[in-house]
Amino acid sequence: MKLFEEKTMKTENIYNGSVVQLQVDDVTLPNGKASKREIIKHPGAVSVIPLTKDNKIIFVEQYRKPLEKSLIEIPAGKMERGESPVVTAVRELEEETGYTTKDLSFVTSFYTSPGFADELLYIYITDQLEALETPVKGDHDEFVKLLELTLDEAKQYVEEERIHDAKTNYAILYLHAMGLN
Amino acid sequence: MKLFEEKTMKTENIYNGSVVQLQVDDVTLPNGKASKREIIKHPGAVSVIPLTKDNKIIFVEQYRKPLEKSLIEIPAGKMERGESPVVTAVRELEEETGYTTKDLSFVTSFYTSPGFADELLYIYITDQLEALETPVKGDHDEFVKLLELTLDEAKQYVEEERIHDAKTNYAILYLHAMGLN
Repeated sequence: MKLFEEKTMKTENIYNGSVVQLQVDDVTLPNGKASKREIIKHPGAVSVIPLTKDNKIIFVEQYRKPLEKSLIEIPAGKMERGESPVVTAVRELEEETGYTTKDLSFVTSFYTSPGFADELLYIYITDQLEALETPVKGDHDEFVKLLELTLDEAKQYVEEERIHDAKTNYAILYLHAMGLN
Repeated sequence: MKLFEEKTMKTENIYNGSVVQLQVDDVTLPNGKASKREIIKHPGAVSVIPLTKDNKIIFVEQYRKPLEKSLIEIPAGKMERGESPVVTAVRELEEETGYTTKDLSFVTSFYTSPGFADELLYIYITDQLEALETPVKGDHDEFVKLLELTLDEAKQYVEEERIHDAKTNYAILYLHAMGLN
């Protein structure tokens, strides 16, 4: 849908990073007036809800520099160029948890912040985890701690805002709605 | 929690926009090695799930330049400096829908994309809407179309990915879990 389309008159590239790219577009609004849009380009991300045989959820705790604190999240990572979401999902699951799976079900996808960023995030779920015999090396700059929590424990962490991000809050509400216990 | 804290060695400010600020931090990782973090600063945002007396949900459709298409979303907007989330919620509800309310309940809050942005998003809900006698003027660069949908209609739009952002997908799952019909 192109309702209220804003036409691009000029694009200024401000920054090309390893995670984000920033550009500022001069646009013409539907009423003919001029405005500017600040746009973050992001490759997209994929997350997995990993469920153990006894209905626990595997989370990772990691430091989030933009917030200057650590959060407890479901495993996730950026998509590589041209990669399909399922491939990213298995890779990040292996790197961050030491488990793999041949069985992923799609839960949902959403843009995390469509007002200023094009990041699309996918969520998958699996209850078919297999421990890797040989651990896979992850990113050199990533440090994560694994946690296995019941849904009730996870809900408590939501209350305490130690779980506090879009994909993980969604995942916990999803498991609640599905009647996991 | 400061697990795996990354110490800031240097902060380079790249861009100060009207919506986002971009900085790149040189950090020292927990293993003593150096890395860089690209960080988007954002003032935070507030959204409202507005329910009518006959259990319809009021949405706004608007053009999202980063995606080059329009999305159907719950009403939302950026926080002004020093503003409390409830004040933002009422202002955005008034500007975007022509309704106001004295009765907002907190649903949840989450960081939209904690890997690269500090944007915190709040979601409130109200079923106590009052039509404004005099419409309030919104942002000069904002064009929105109002829609009133049943939850089933909204779920269909999720399937079609015309509803496709974190706060709105969360809101619809929340209403589903609450048993709205």
